[in-house]
Order: sequence, then C-alpha cells, then structure tokens
Amino acid sequence: MEAGKKAAAVYAVNKFVKNGHVLGIGSGSTVVYAVERLAKRVMKEKLEVVCVPTSFQAQQLITENKLVLSDLERNPELDVAIDGADEVDANLTLIKGGGGCLTQEKIVASCAKTLVIIADDRKDSKQLGEKWSKGVPVEVVPFAYRPVMLKMEKMGLSPVLRMAKAKAGPVVTDNGNFIIDVGFSKPQDWNKLNTDLNLIPGVLETGLFVNMTNHVVFGKEDGSIATRDAR
Amino acid sequence: MEAGKKAAAVYAVNKFVKNGHVLGIGSGSTVVYAVERLAKRVMKEKLEVVCVPTSFQAQQLITENKLVLSDLERNPELDVAIDGADEVDANLTLIKGGGGCLTQEKIVASCAKTLVIIADDRKDSKQLGEKWSKGVPVEVVPFAYRPVMLKMEKMGLSPVLRMAKAKAGPVVTDNGNFIIDVGFSKPQDWNKLNTDLNLIPGVLETGLFVNMTNHVVFGKEDGSIATRDAR
Repeated sequence: MEAGKKAAAVYAVNKFVKNGHVLGIGSGSTVVYAVERLAKRVMKEKLEVVCVPTSFQAQQLITENKLVLSDLERNPELDVAIDGADEVDANLTLIKGGGGCLTQEKIVASCAKTLVIIADDRKDSKQLGEKWSKGVPVEVVPFAYRPVMLKMEKMGLSPVLRMAKAKAGPVVTDNGNFIIDVGFSKPQDWNKLNTDLNLIPGVLETGLFVNMTNHVVFGKEDGSIATRDAR
Repeated sequence: MEAGKKAAAVYAVNKFVKNGHVLGIGSGSTVVYAVERLAKRVMKEKLEVVCVPTSFQAQQLITENKLVLSDLERNPELDVAIDGADEVDANLTLIKGGGGCLTQEKIVASCAKTLVIIADDRKDSKQLGEKWSKGVPVEVVPFAYRPVMLKMEKMGLSPVLRMAKAKAGPVVTDNGNFIIDVGFSKPQDWNKLNTDLNLIPGVLETGLFVNMTNHVVFGKEDGSIATRDAR
C-alpha cells in the first residue's frame, strides 16, 4: 500500500511539476510522498515553485519541507494541483473528503489548470461506491445539519453525521463546520447528485469531483504505476 | 416607510400565525414589527408558538420579547417562516442578504411549509435589479474569496467584496464567512444563476430565493397593504 502510494506520488511530481509552477498541495497520506519528492526536486534541480495548501495538514507539510507557502489571495490561479482521492471511477469522477478537507480541496482544484490525482490502486473502481462504502462526504454549517439530513433522506439517501474520534461529538472541519457522509444504494448521476446536494440550503460543498480531474496516477504494491487521463 | 413596514408585519402575523405553530423568525428592520405583534398576540390570546431565529438579531428579538426560543435541532420542520427581503419581483423571486444573514434565512425558509415575506412597497419591482442596485449577496468561505470573484467575473458578473462599517476590513457573517455582492448588468435566469453561483467551490449560499416564497405582503406609507401569492 505504501509502496503504491509512493510510486504514484513520485511519478506525478516528476512528470507534471515544472520550474516556475504555482502548485496546489492536497491532503492525505499519499500527498506526504508527493511533498517529499517535491522537496527533493527543489533541492537538486533548484526548482522555483510556490505551494498553496488545501488544509492545515498540507500547510504543515509545506513548511516542514521548507517549500514556499502561498495562498489563494496571492495566487488565485494555479498551474497544477496534486491531491489524493478516496475513490476514482472509470470517468475520473472522484469521491473525496475521507479526511474532511473536501471544501478546500475542491476550491484549490477548481483554481488549477491541471488536476492530478495520486492514489494506490485500491482506490480504482468501475462504479463509485464499489470500493468506498461510506458515501459522499458533504460539509454543512453546524446549525443546519438536522434539516439537511432530513432533506437528504427525502431524496432517498442515507446520511450519517460523522463523529470525531479524538474529541467528543461531531467532527469539526478546518472551516468550523460538520461533515455528513451521504450513503447511496445504487449508482447515481454524479453531476446531478452534486448539484442537488449543493443546492440544499446549509450545504457548503460535496466531496464529489465531477469533470474536474485531468490525470490519475495509480500506484501498485510492486512499485509500478498505471495512469488514466481525461478525454 | 416605517408605517408601511409595520402594516405589512401586523397583517402577516394576524393572518398566517396560528396557535401551536413552529415559526421561523427572519432578520431585518421589518421583522422587528412582526415580533412585536407576535408578542402581543401571545400575551392577549395565550397563543403557544415556538420561534426559530435566522440570525443573532432574530434570536435577541425573540428573547427580548419573551417568546419561546428554539432551533433547527429541536424543530427541523416549521409551519411558517416570516422574513423581509431587499427586493421582490413579479414571480416572487427574492434578493435577500442586505443584512448579511442570507444563509440562515435560506436554511430556515427551506424548512418552512409556508414562507411569508413582509416588506414596504419600495421593495416591489418588476425585474430584480430595478430597485436593489447592489446585486446578489453571496456568502463565501474567507480564503476562497479571490478565486470565487475571478470566476464570477469570467461569468460576466461584477463582484464586490462587502466591507464592514464598524470594524476594519470585510464584513464577517454570523457563520464567520465573507459576503460578495454580485452585480449583474441585465436580467438573468434567476434559477440558473442561483445554481451556477452555488456550484462555484467556496460559495456557501446565495441571496437569490427562487420558488421558495408562498406569500408577499407589501405595506404602504398610508398603512394599507397589498399581497402577492404564489400560483
């Protein structure tokens, strides 16, 4: 698993990052390898790159690896964003947000000319829901979570408020909101589901990334990689 | 102006509020008269009603008038929500959010069986934009405001970050976010604009209320009222 993550990360950083780039740095365990590889390339090749984080975790990774930290105020347009995913289907539609940073990840991804997803090959699936069983993470403002969940149930979905493990009560995101994991019983029209969920008052963002990804790099346990590109 | 607001508020509370109702209490200057009228009815008629606020302002109004305060956790389904608006068109489409509470207002409105809008008749317009010149208020997470504004400009809109008057820098909402006032040069397909704005990553909610309002009560300076109902 770690070998696959590392292989994908190294390949993506080698192939897609160029001197002078403004980069979006995603969240999660696979991105750690990407930032390490990036730090090596910066050191060896004297690359000049600027990094915009998608979470506090990403921000810490950037500073710990002595990369140049920026933000969307200074750099609202990015060349490449590199991020992980919880599941990737055949059309490069993603479920993201297992780590709770889906809103920042989607904002940063939406600012990038090229979105590159890196993952071990357990995340590769034909249909969303086949590998990631928890549903679509959705970020909501705290005081709206109950009516939002009722509206999701009326849509035939199965919402669960995500509970924290290192504090009492619900998970609180980097934005101070809650996460609802929205289960679905059968494959959906993902673009429509993303729109319908976004239009529920109180929903900030969903973890469905539809028509956003340009390239996916899957890493395998033997250290080899496979790529999938948007048409 | 105040006579018109008061006339609309008194009429709406008399006509739409029944004993046993769970009520949504909106924000703004017109709602103050509605809460005062409600308090009188509760006292005189021994009405039992429960009030869910749409803002800190509404919450204070409810407690100052000794009404029963609730929230969407205990009462996720409301009978009637009474709120103001910045502009109302012939189809009962609203622009709201001049007071910056659009997100809570929309959440509470979306939980109500009946949404009643009260306003003085200066808010009555044939086309949105005719009376309210500042555009559609949109609530965004702070770190995304710059790319969100760039995306709005690419859509042909004219976004302005709303600045505070009693603190330095931008207005901060009750949810800790920023407000962008989104100008438009000509009438729009409001349903489409609401969807398009909601789908920009980082946008929490817009002040466009499309197909949500059941009844509008306009108050005039002479103390008379006019009503407009959804078909």
